[in-house]
Amino acid sequence: MWLQTLRLTAAAPRYWFLPGGFVAVHTTSYRNGDRWRWSIGGRQKWSMLTIGAGFSTALGLGLYVYKLRHPPPQTASTGADKAEAKDGGAVKGNSHCKDLPSFTCKEIAQHCTFEQRIWVTYKGCVYDITDFVDLHPGGDKILMAAGGPLEPFWEMYAVHSNPEVLCILKKYHIGYLDVDEAAMSSGVSSDPYACDPPRHPVLIVNSSKPFNAETPAEILTASYFTPNAFFYKRNHLPVPDIDPEAYRLEVRGEGIPTPVFLSLEELKKKFPKQEVVATLQCAGNRRKEMTHVRPVKGLNWNIGALGNARWGGVWLRDVLLYAGFQEDDTQVKHVQFEGRDQDVTGSAYGSSIPLHKAVAEKNDVLLAYEMNGDELPRDHGFPIRVVVPGVVGARSVKWLHRIVLSREESRSHWQRNDYKGFSPSVDWTNVDFSKAPAIQELPVQSAITEPAEGAQVLADDGDLVVRGYAWSGGGREVVRVDVSLDGGCTWNVAQLEPPYVSEDDRNAQQTEEGRAWAWKLWTLQAPLPAEGGKLEIVCKAVDSSYNVQPESFEPIWNLRGVLSNAWHHVHITVLPPERTPHQPRYSRRVRGRSTENISQDIDTETSCAIDCISVLVRPLCGHERRCTCGSVIVSSCCSNQVFRCSNLCPQNTK
Amino acid sequence: MWLQTLRLTAAAPRYWFLPGGFVAVHTTSYRNGDRWRWSIGGRQKWSMLTIGAGFSTALGLGLYVYKLRHPPPQTASTGADKAEAKDGGAVKGNSHCKDLPSFTCKEIAQHCTFEQRIWVTYKGCVYDITDFVDLHPGGDKILMAAGGPLEPFWEMYAVHSNPEVLCILKKYHIGYLDVDEAAMSSGVSSDPYACDPPRHPVLIVNSSKPFNAETPAEILTASYFTPNAFFYKRNHLPVPDIDPEAYRLEVRGEGIPTPVFLSLEELKKKFPKQEVVATLQCAGNRRKEMTHVRPVKGLNWNIGALGNARWGGVWLRDVLLYAGFQEDDTQVKHVQFEGRDQDVTGSAYGSSIPLHKAVAEKNDVLLAYEMNGDELPRDHGFPIRVVVPGVVGARSVKWLHRIVLSREESRSHWQRNDYKGFSPSVDWTNVDFSKAPAIQELPVQSAITEPAEGAQVLADDGDLVVRGYAWSGGGREVVRVDVSLDGGCTWNVAQLEPPYVSEDDRNAQQTEEGRAWAWKLWTLQAPLPAEGGKLEIVCKAVDSSYNVQPESFEPIWNLRGVLSNAWHHVHITVLPPERTPHQPRYSRRVRGRSTENISQDIDTETSCAIDCISVLVRPLCGHERRCTCGSVIVSSCCSNQVFRCSNLCPQNTK
Repeated sequence: MWLQTLRLTAAAPRYWFLPGGFVAVHTTSYRNGDRWRWSIGGRQKWSMLTIGAGFSTALGLGLYVYKLRHPPPQTASTGADKAEAKDGGAVKGNSHCKDLPSFTCKEIAQHCTFEQRIWVTYKGCVYDITDFVDLHPGGDKILMAAGGPLEPFWEMYAVHSNPEVLCILKKYHIGYLDVDEAAMSSGVSSDPYACDPPRHPVLIVNSSKPFNAETPAEILTASYFTPNAFFYKRNHLPVPDIDPEAYRLEVRGEGIPTPVFLSLEELKKKFPKQEVVATLQCAGNRRKEMTHVRPVKGLNWNIGALGNARWGGVWLRDVLLYAGFQEDDTQVKHVQFEGRDQDVTGSAYGSSIPLHKAVAEKNDVLLAYEMNGDELPRDHGFPIRVVVPGVVGARSVKWLHRIVLSREESRSHWQRNDYKGFSPSVDWTNVDFSKAPAIQELPVQSAITEPAEGAQVLADDGDLVVRGYAWSGGGREVVRVDVSLDGGCTWNVAQLEPPYVSEDDRNAQQTEEGRAWAWKLWTLQAPLPAEGGKLEIVCKAVDSSYNVQPESFEPIWNLRGVLSNAWHHVHITVLPPERTPHQPRYSRRVRGRSTENISQDIDTETSCAIDCISVLVRPLCGHERRCTCGSVIVSSCCSNQVFRCSNLCPQNTK
Repeated sequence: MWLQTLRLTAAAPRYWFLPGGFVAVHTTSYRNGDRWRWSIGGRQKWSMLTIGAGFSTALGLGLYVYKLRHPPPQTASTGADKAEAKDGGAVKGNSHCKDLPSFTCKEIAQHCTFEQRIWVTYKGCVYDITDFVDLHPGGDKILMAAGGPLEPFWEMYAVHSNPEVLCILKKYHIGYLDVDEAAMSSGVSSDPYACDPPRHPVLIVNSSKPFNAETPAEILTASYFTPNAFFYKRNHLPVPDIDPEAYRLEVRGEGIPTPVFLSLEELKKKFPKQEVVATLQCAGNRRKEMTHVRPVKGLNWNIGALGNARWGGVWLRDVLLYAGFQEDDTQVKHVQFEGRDQDVTGSAYGSSIPLHKAVAEKNDVLLAYEMNGDELPRDHGFPIRVVVPGVVGARSVKWLHRIVLSREESRSHWQRNDYKGFSPSVDWTNVDFSKAPAIQELPVQSAITEPAEGAQVLADDGDLVVRGYAWSGGGREVVRVDVSLDGGCTWNVAQLEPPYVSEDDRNAQQTEEGRAWAWKLWTLQAPLPAEGGKLEIVCKAVDSSYNVQPESFEPIWNLRGVLSNAWHHVHITVLPPERTPHQPRYSRRVRGRSTENISQDIDTETSCAIDCISVLVRPLCGHERRCTCGSVIVSSCCSNQVFRCSNLCPQNTK
């Protein structure tokens, strides 16, 4: 019976956000700390307290029974046992139990394999969860947090915000995050990137200096809001270290009588706080696929260079009018933004948007100081960034220093000689950047996040579940996503998930037509072919102007590899029920490396369980069957829709 | 030397519109007359008078020399000879020379072949121009006017608005349009379409009742503004016969305190006159190509169900505010339009647009009473129609009767159960019209208008010139058109023609970003392969949001055949220089019928000249070579880029 309860709660994890408000613990890295600290952002405190009683009862019952059936392992005697006696079992910060050692982020990050043991952090404490992995009701997904903080995952799977879960966790307490690490690392350094903030190890790094990393596909669409720690980072230069007390935003240029300087505090106090839910996407998202046509110049982004967040701040429009701009001014044509991030010559990142985009009320252009209810993280522009909904991420300038109203576009490299689209006939020998307009609104886009490329599923696993995201620029709502399982010959219409609208946002402006700034997550459930075979899954989206994605990359190839929005393809194998694969294609997700590159590293005898990391599983799916591969006990929860390790493993045991 | 002058003026016929204003004679059909009458609309009168002196001199010299070399033929002694003596050579209306017979439009329309002789009308007079065809400096293009009025063609080719040209024409005067025809045809009739206005015979008719006809590709992009007579007609019901004196526009609904009724005169007097240049496109434009995938329901439009016009009228926004609508009203979501065209049950055509589209200043939604400077023609909604720029034509309701502000969309069939896009997987057995949004903004579109499908060109003809149109919905400007000559393997960037902006419009709002309501005409000039062969010409456009057209129709197929915007393909044959074709593929454009269907009608021995009708020629190209096929003398002006009859004809003579 308890299993049934668990199944019910597991069936729709992302809908749990809807009825009870946004129940999540946000992770924020502060400017002075090179560590992960935790905070519960704004309204979420109250949401957490007011979580629906019915849901809590069901969940509590499930976890209680689960705890009875899975007593804590006896193999690890940790400091937490002592701490428990003192504090009655509640997990505390790192102010108690000082006899446990401290570890730096770097040390912790090394503990991301079973050989090195699996460490995670939570609220300043370090836990060795190696022996808990097989007991985790959510399956091996927990391994994605290996070597880093748990908070962003728990933000996505709110079920963890429960005393019972915390009680289980503290059994594995082995130490603390080193409180002096920041001071130690603040010594002199000639590396301009030395002051960059720490990042979550789960990110797939495309470039470390400047830091550019994307969200793994497996977790990209696990929640409507992308946790800040997982949100793709696109930096052109070192992250500036800005003192919020000394920060001043300058507004000047044509139509501004006298330059205006606003402190962070003034911005917050002089203007009403506004919120907008908007997806930001890098112009180079999915560039990797375009490179298969011909090489291009640019970071090798896969499908994760976009994310969706709730941005809090003040309308750019309000600030411009405050600074004296008159709406009937016919001279000003562009609003330029200049960042505080500078190269060695002192040149700052810059960009601009057309005036009408900047000032029209319906365009919701924000000067943001919050991201998903938290203070804007350093990687995302602390203390102030621009958020231009519906427009390429490159115009949402971070670490905003200066706003300049002008008759012309920004003269920055990134406005005039980058982020533009060209014909496939244009190459580096004949390109003329003045011939193409700067990218502003982006075209319609979609991609498949589940199953993963190369996944194997069993024909008797029931339905195949395909998931993904879709979005379009300019506030054009995605109205349909077509999914094909046969390479594009026939199509099925995916189910679009309703956009997340909180109680506070029920009357929010961005729900109006033409203001669909946020992505849509979608699902297709379809029967698996009983006879097995290879499936080529394809998705394509349609927006409210009925624009569609192009079929292939050849005709949209461009030398910078931007605007890469052709149909997304994922190939999987459906194994017939009778077949026991002798040499299953095992793979393991290793940070920053694609599975193709590391296949030679994998010991096929022991990697069955690890393979589960690479697929998105349904948390708490509650399947009972388990198998053993070497020293690893595998939970069978690796999704019956996607991959069932228990059936593939030759040492399968009931 | 005069030839050189002619070549110079012929090189850029469509640019002649630019320097001297819009020089054209507009044709308008009045509500009480079933005939073509002429008028010179509004500002064009002045433009005609102020045409640049330099241009006039060059043209005048050319025509003068031409007249010397081509004396009027002696074969036809017409009534015009007598008239000339009386009126000194000026062409007059039908008030003089009453001894000439009168003809009905129907009779005139039958004279569209050489067998029946070629008749045309101009300013109420009828001309038999059969013997002038070979003398026409613009080549056989004159044959497109056969059986109908010359005015719309002369509107496109302003060079004709010259006394010298008129002087030549009157030599062929044979009669008048029957002044009593209207009265005769106004007798009792049970045909609900009996009161429909007359239409220009050059239109390709897809349905006569209701009347639906498109512009032939050959003339579609010959001018930036589509002459009213050639503008595609898309009627759902009989054309209502509205007395402008009795006409009242009603404005009512949510947010309107009391219904308001406005006469045509009040609309013109109470609100400032506004103009907007906007392309309208039928949702089913290019449906014909989609039917090659699978049959669809709908009229078989080729690429001509769109047109570009300058619309004059009043802002819808102004009228709504006048009627008492408050901009901060949060209840109203849609603006419904109801036409005066009704079916037999009394149900009127209806449609609606979202409120923000209707009232935002930048959206330029117009209640139009003028089209290209003329009174709105009956087929286009006389006396008032809505023009919603950037949006599917179906929302630009004609013969506007009533505006209703509402919380919901129009409940009309055309809003809720038509004009929607679906997945290729949806057919008539499983369609649910409530599942798709009504089409509003249209996706990016382009097509090739020249050369024609199946055209033959000679490899030594020099460069191939490809022409076409491109447009996108929502005010998104077309920023690039790629053209391939090898079926899409490699691409060339076409030259976009600058949008037409008159002196008056230099500061017009619609030139601002996000307000690109008008199409862009484009040209690609590329060398022909010396060895000959078959070319597959393809075009695809990119708009300012970098949306692109889909490659093929299969993935966008939908049961109503709307939104048909895949790449456009045209196949031509390049004949190697040494080859003298024994059996050239001859074809002739016959009204309302494609060339494929009539090939069996053609006498290949005599059709060389006629074939020229089917290709777009450069007027006044001034080539001297001519050939004779049977009784027809062919001007060699059939475009050296596209088709040169003189070279193909076995009886070719210098």
